[in-house]
Amino acid sequence: MAGSPAALAIFSDTGTVQRMLAVEAALARAEARCGVIPAAAAAAIAEVCAEVSTDPAVIDLDALAQSAVAAGNLAIPFVKQLTAAVAARDAEAARFVHWGATSQDIIDTALVLQLGAALPALQADLLALGHACAALATAHRDTPMVGRTWLQHALPTTFGLKAAGWLDALRRDLSRLDAARRHAGALQFGGAAGTLASLGAAAPAVARELARELQLDLPALPWHAHRDRLVEVATALGMLVGTLGKMARDISLLMQTEVAEVAEPSGPGRGGSSTMPHKRNPVGCAAVLSAAVRVPPLVATMLAGMVQEHERALGGWQAEWDTLPQIVTLAAGALRQMGEVAVGLQVDGERMRANLDLTHGLILGEAAMLELGGRIGRLQAHHLVEQASRRAAAQRTTLRQALAQTLADDPAHAGLLDDATLDRLADPANYAGQSAAFTDAAVHAWHAALAQRAAD
Amino acid sequence: MAGSPAALAIFSDTGTVQRMLAVEAALARAEARCGVIPAAAAAAIAEVCAEVSTDPAVIDLDALAQSAVAAGNLAIPFVKQLTAAVAARDAEAARFVHWGATSQDIIDTALVLQLGAALPALQADLLALGHACAALATAHRDTPMVGRTWLQHALPTTFGLKAAGWLDALRRDLSRLDAARRHAGALQFGGAAGTLASLGAAAPAVARELARELQLDLPALPWHAHRDRLVEVATALGMLVGTLGKMARDISLLMQTEVAEVAEPSGPGRGGSSTMPHKRNPVGCAAVLSAAVRVPPLVATMLAGMVQEHERALGGWQAEWDTLPQIVTLAAGALRQMGEVAVGLQVDGERMRANLDLTHGLILGEAAMLELGGRIGRLQAHHLVEQASRRAAAQRTTLRQALAQTLADDPAHAGLLDDATLDRLADPANYAGQSAAFTDAAVHAWHAALAQRAAD
Amino acid sequence: MAGSPAALAIFSDTGTVQRMLAVEAALARAEARCGVIPAAAAAAIAEVCAEVSTDPAVIDLDALAQSAVAAGNLAIPFVKQLTAAVAARDAEAARFVHWGATSQDIIDTALVLQLGAALPALQADLLALGHACAALATAHRDTPMVGRTWLQHALPTTFGLKAAGWLDALRRDLSRLDAARRHAGALQFGGAAGTLASLGAAAPAVARELARELQLDLPALPWHAHRDRLVEVATALGMLVGTLGKMARDISLLMQTEVAEVAEPSGPGRGGSSTMPHKRNPVGCAAVLSAAVRVPPLVATMLAGMVQEHERALGGWQAEWDTLPQIVTLAAGALRQMGEVAVGLQVDGERMRANLDLTHGLILGEAAMLELGGRIGRLQAHHLVEQASRRAAAQRTTLRQALAQTLADDPAHAGLLDDATLDRLADPANYAGQSAAFTDAAVHAWHAALAQRAAD
Amino acid sequence: MAGSPAALAIFSDTGTVQRMLAVEAALARAEARCGVIPAAAAAAIAEVCAEVSTDPAVIDLDALAQSAVAAGNLAIPFVKQLTAAVAARDAEAARFVHWGATSQDIIDTALVLQLGAALPALQADLLALGHACAALATAHRDTPMVGRTWLQHALPTTFGLKAAGWLDALRRDLSRLDAARRHAGALQFGGAAGTLASLGAAAPAVARELARELQLDLPALPWHAHRDRLVEVATALGMLVGTLGKMARDISLLMQTEVAEVAEPSGPGRGGSSTMPHKRNPVGCAAVLSAAVRVPPLVATMLAGMVQEHERALGGWQAEWDTLPQIVTLAAGALRQMGEVAVGLQVDGERMRANLDLTHGLILGEAAMLELGGRIGRLQAHHLVEQASRRAAAQRTTLRQALAQTLADDPAHAGLLDDATLDRLADPANYAGQSAAFTDAAVHAWHAALAQRAAD
Repeated sequence: MAGSPAALAIFSDTGTVQRMLAVEAALARAEARCGVIPAAAAAAIAEVCAEVSTDPAVIDLDALAQSAVAAGNLAIPFVKQLTAAVAARDAEAARFVHWGATSQDIIDTALVLQLGAALPALQADLLALGHACAALATAHRDTPMVGRTWLQHALPTTFGLKAAGWLDALRRDLSRLDAARRHAGALQFGGAAGTLASLGAAAPAVARELARELQLDLPALPWHAHRDRLVEVATALGMLVGTLGKMARDISLLMQTEVAEVAEPSGPGRGGSSTMPHKRNPVGCAAVLSAAVRVPPLVATMLAGMVQEHERALGGWQAEWDTLPQIVTLAAGALRQMGEVAVGLQVDGERMRANLDLTHGLILGEAAMLELGGRIGRLQAHHLVEQASRRAAAQRTTLRQALAQTLADDPAHAGLLDDATLDRLADPANYAGQSAAFTDAAVHAWHAALAQRAAD
Repeated sequence: MAGSPAALAIFSDTGTVQRMLAVEAALARAEARCGVIPAAAAAAIAEVCAEVSTDPAVIDLDALAQSAVAAGNLAIPFVKQLTAAVAARDAEAARFVHWGATSQDIIDTALVLQLGAALPALQADLLALGHACAALATAHRDTPMVGRTWLQHALPTTFGLKAAGWLDALRRDLSRLDAARRHAGALQFGGAAGTLASLGAAAPAVARELARELQLDLPALPWHAHRDRLVEVATALGMLVGTLGKMARDISLLMQTEVAEVAEPSGPGRGGSSTMPHKRNPVGCAAVLSAAVRVPPLVATMLAGMVQEHERALGGWQAEWDTLPQIVTLAAGALRQMGEVAVGLQVDGERMRANLDLTHGLILGEAAMLELGGRIGRLQAHHLVEQASRRAAAQRTTLRQALAQTLADDPAHAGLLDDATLDRLADPANYAGQSAAFTDAAVHAWHAALAQRAAD
Repeated sequence: MAGSPAALAIFSDTGTVQRMLAVEAALARAEARCGVIPAAAAAAIAEVCAEVSTDPAVIDLDALAQSAVAAGNLAIPFVKQLTAAVAARDAEAARFVHWGATSQDIIDTALVLQLGAALPALQADLLALGHACAALATAHRDTPMVGRTWLQHALPTTFGLKAAGWLDALRRDLSRLDAARRHAGALQFGGAAGTLASLGAAAPAVARELARELQLDLPALPWHAHRDRLVEVATALGMLVGTLGKMARDISLLMQTEVAEVAEPSGPGRGGSSTMPHKRNPVGCAAVLSAAVRVPPLVATMLAGMVQEHERALGGWQAEWDTLPQIVTLAAGALRQMGEVAVGLQVDGERMRANLDLTHGLILGEAAMLELGGRIGRLQAHHLVEQASRRAAAQRTTLRQALAQTLADDPAHAGLLDDATLDRLADPANYAGQSAAFTDAAVHAWHAALAQRAAD
Repeated sequence: MAGSPAALAIFSDTGTVQRMLAVEAALARAEARCGVIPAAAAAAIAEVCAEVSTDPAVIDLDALAQSAVAAGNLAIPFVKQLTAAVAARDAEAARFVHWGATSQDIIDTALVLQLGAALPALQADLLALGHACAALATAHRDTPMVGRTWLQHALPTTFGLKAAGWLDALRRDLSRLDAARRHAGALQFGGAAGTLASLGAAAPAVARELARELQLDLPALPWHAHRDRLVEVATALGMLVGTLGKMARDISLLMQTEVAEVAEPSGPGRGGSSTMPHKRNPVGCAAVLSAAVRVPPLVATMLAGMVQEHERALGGWQAEWDTLPQIVTLAAGALRQMGEVAVGLQVDGERMRANLDLTHGLILGEAAMLELGGRIGRLQAHHLVEQASRRAAAQRTTLRQALAQTLADDPAHAGLLDDATLDRLADPANYAGQSAAFTDAAVHAWHAALAQRAAD
């Protein structure tokens, strides 16, 4: 339910087989170029791969899945079917299908190609979401709202600063994804035990050509049993989903009927209830929060799977097969959902201002305490304001009034704060601190990062 | 790859829709019986549900998935499609589809029905696996083999005792699954906020009838936001997968080329290598070990999802949707795989005996130490045997010989152990301890549990 | 921070050593009774164990921890220290310390004894919490409040029903803990490779006596590498923490400044803010929610650790050592915190009633829809109420008024609902459904479970 | 048990309080420099902090822990105790302790300082381990051994290549830790709601000075509820532990009695057994494998905790407090253990060579298949070699002989491979492929990375 269409297609059975075909075709071409297999064979193989790729029905996916259970992986029956398809065209060429490679070379490199397709699409969505947050931050740079800590009213902040916090986290997510993509774009090519012995002296040249064909990095050595490159992608996506989950938690809390400061965009069929026509459910946030529950344990699976045996593993590698695609798909879906939410987010500045007044000035306690603290010490000031707060709550009056009374009650404190000072302290707009400056800094950092990224 | 066919079918999109149809049909019947909706309407609804269930193509699964994203769950568009199908038959009846229920009532109860179908199938496989282990335990009750701790040779044990350990764990898994099934077989029926207000005074009767129709327990109250019943199923399966993983780890280690004491059954297309014709891979164990990496974090997802908001949740519930089916499917697949492995397991008793001798009697150190300890104290005996062990390793002789020499070297110990004693100590068959008794006890407990279960 | 004092003491280094001493003493006594070691030796060993247990300083905990790193576990240096202490008293007796046991026998059985002490204490706290929830459910059986789904106002419910939901989950947690305790109370005693070969023919008798001494069950066979008994405790606690987390989520949301329907008890130093004197933070809920984030992955660790090698494992067993104590301690602490919160919970029924009116009757949409649905069909009714809801929101009027207007606007619907009907529908007290009955059922089930438990 | 002494000290209660003191002192100095508090007050505060830091007994750690439960965090009682200590010296100065900061500013920044101390120490151990692996790779660049896949003999490789694989993964771990350290070195300073309103116009200057004092980066805005910087450290350590776990799995498998190709270093009290004097347990590997089971779920905790509410969170933040220190400590301990293992690893090249011959040439199947495949096609060659393999196993002869017979049996294939060719194919030293070249590349990349790192 939470997948983005692009990611779902890339990691579908068809999408997987298409990348495996691309690897086999590139392998044949690279080997022909290095004189390892005949050029005619490579041409035939590449041709069949291309044809099958546009008409994947040639590959029987159900039979593939069936045989994979007994064979232990997908590549073994895939190579059999591909070899048969090539043989139908050119029996001689069929002898050279998959030449010198091992199953895992094909499966891993196909996965690397899938990531190479999925991550840029996902990052494009991330940019769109970032731009939406930057727009919210800028538009609401000076919109005061309640800052909440421990789910309680604390001090004033601005909605711009909240959006700027989201934005700054997204900027770091973008950068981590750039790094993870770079690290994960590595060819897997080692043959049965990671030595490429099957290709003799031609091995280095074939590996180089194959990497060039697929536009992948050529690593120092094969990484069949060292999976950190893929795990890094998983962790970067895990952190992104954490950022999205934080946004969704914030937005869904702000959407509560009693708070009502923001609302997800509405639309036909979106967020309705089957029995309660008046409801408008935060369905985007729900999907994101669900992903934020599911992805962390999936990242743990990838980490736990790293403990792999010897040259190729028993269990840890297999555990990745469905897990990494699920992580990418969930992250892409959550990003898509949060993009729609952020772009269409309805912000009610008036309600934000009204909620600020809910506690009758109670949230200005800190301002009063600091003002007093500068005169009589922090602990003493804390004590006085606590007293006044209790008085305000008990008498259902404002903190301003209660504090005036509390000070007046005690000769030692009478006159400490005059009326003008109390008025100033009671206006939340006077207590937004560095909200605007922080907001500007985050927006600036976002644009600077994009410029730097474009320059790289 | 690791799913059992039965579990995969039950949790497929079609399998899910079929259970949702069963719930809607039962609801209509129950409500008609209680006079809440017209009998004719119930008949029409039930009829359409039955027809659609045998021809699921009536429901457009792609459209369902598409709409579910915006709607927030599967039941909303499902009810729309079902209502349309009923309306095509009987417009009046269509007014009463899904009467008084909420989406989650349908989704949860359908899931409960799926578990009610999947768990017995899974338990049947568990019984088959248990019987295979009981057979191995009985057949190899007296087959000596190396006991290994810390992946090092320790003392002799028997293969029967190893199989008995598996068996005893499976017995506990069976019992936990019985409990979990019993607890999870509870109707979900609460309406929009869990009060069944939608059904007025008829609510208790309808709930009772609905539970009876579906052969489910009627809980004290709806459990929309209290998910422990489902989580208990997840944890019971998690422990089962742990047991299977332990078996797979044992078997795959015993299958290592250097150890070669057991082998997975072979068969056409099973466990071959695309490049190394001589290899026979433990593909069953690999699938099980992969499940053993993946399932624990999925159980954590279920546990983490329990923190649900108010009457119905935002994120935690949604996180279960794919997770619990994955757990069931992975567990069922692992069980199926391990069943095949255990039933066809090739056990090489001769090789087990040969490996016992690999350390030239070194593994009999404990027997010697205890014999000596009874005479000169444990610490002193430990010291002497350690010396002899080092001597045996250095001189590539047996511990029996080295110990005789070590004792002879020191007048204080000369003659402590005579030749007959040393011979007795050096025969592993004399040092299997309670292996046979423990094996018998586990086999007996298994049969007793089955008898008790049949009687319940 | 989240531990209960009792659990922390039981799992402290001292608490652990005390249980290891208890096992060694019982072992010596059992072996003497079976004629395996001299009675005098057993007496001396048991005496020293008892003395050390009351004066744990005899054992050098730092040296123990230091040596354990190199030795690979705690029991090896512990047995060395204990043997030295016994030797200082009676050199002959020292020969028989730890006779025939393996390190894991001591460590595992000590852990079983720790669980045997910690779980009843924890369950006593669970009972106290359950009683507090039962009291809340009874006291607020008819206190109407907003039912919330997707963090949005849905339909009326009662606070009693909410508390009854917590209570019913606690009842199931209690029962699962009873089962887990029963299953986990099993002696571990197998010697170096799980065969008890070290004790020769006396093994069964010694095992029986040892179990009797420690009041533990004697299992069919040792379970060194089969850990499900302990994992079951972890999962039962994991579900309990899930229940507590759900309660904490509910309470912290209800405590939000804008909602203010309940409040954690206050007290000196409890929940204050260092800078904002007016704040009253839900510190109990925070501790519980923190535990609810931490415990699920720790349960996954226990499950993942089950894949243990051969007769005794390499890594999986060691991973349990800190993990299970952490789970117990976190669960006990969360339970203690939630107990304090529930016992002192401040419930503001007036505010609950006021919040019900916040949406100007909007939450009564379902009642109206069902009333209309019975006359014109569910879909048509849904459409009408949705229209009226939008109108109410736009015109800031009540749903009652907007619906009257909407019906009046369309000749086809005019007069469908008269004024008396609309008034009835608009009163939330008329739409609490089975809240009271469900509450009564849960309270009844709780008391019935306690009675049954007392009878068992 | 698995902690390194340095990491344990840094994250001990004392270590934590010392960093909190450092933050408070730096805050006072920064504020004095900006004219926010009197210079004399700052001097007194800094003086007291320094004194307490060297004599931490001034702070009552037990009382701190006690009060923290009720207060909700450690900083609140800590500030109280510190204020009292300052007041005892200078009542006026005590008014300015913790001026303008919030609890989380102190706790988070102290944690950042702890990471700043722990990570370089950990990276020094990583470098030592890397050097040990580089030395192994170089020394055994041409030491042939069995390559194993699926825990079965596959093709020849070298021990140098195995060590080079470890090394290359460590190089990437080092680089990820560099990035994570850089990102995590950010000051936390936002005051109660993240706006620094408490410091008025002086806020930016104070923040700048404070960052300078502590040698931390000044971020665009406070990150109270955006935790990715810390989570990135957790994930980088998680991947490192994965690498270490892979090494430990490899080494412990190679240490098995039947394989015996490597051994952990021995030493007094290291890896002995309490009952089996002949045993030498892989205790270093066990500790590392235990960490590899425990860390992935702890990383999941950090990721799950990212979903934090509003300006400061309820549960997610608190969940980090023990979790991140545990991750660092476990990683540091595992690294230390693996360092000792790698530096002292005993490698038995003769045994490696002997194990290569265990399958009587069977592992050379691929070489034969490729040689034949070039002549008669891959599938046909695969078939022939599979036949020969079965024959070799059945007749307990070598593959060389069996293949000669198989070819001779069929006139179509007779003479395909002459004796010289068969001899060449049967020598594993002729089939190590690119092992040496890959090894050289990894060693070169390691040194290049270190040089680049030194230059940065």
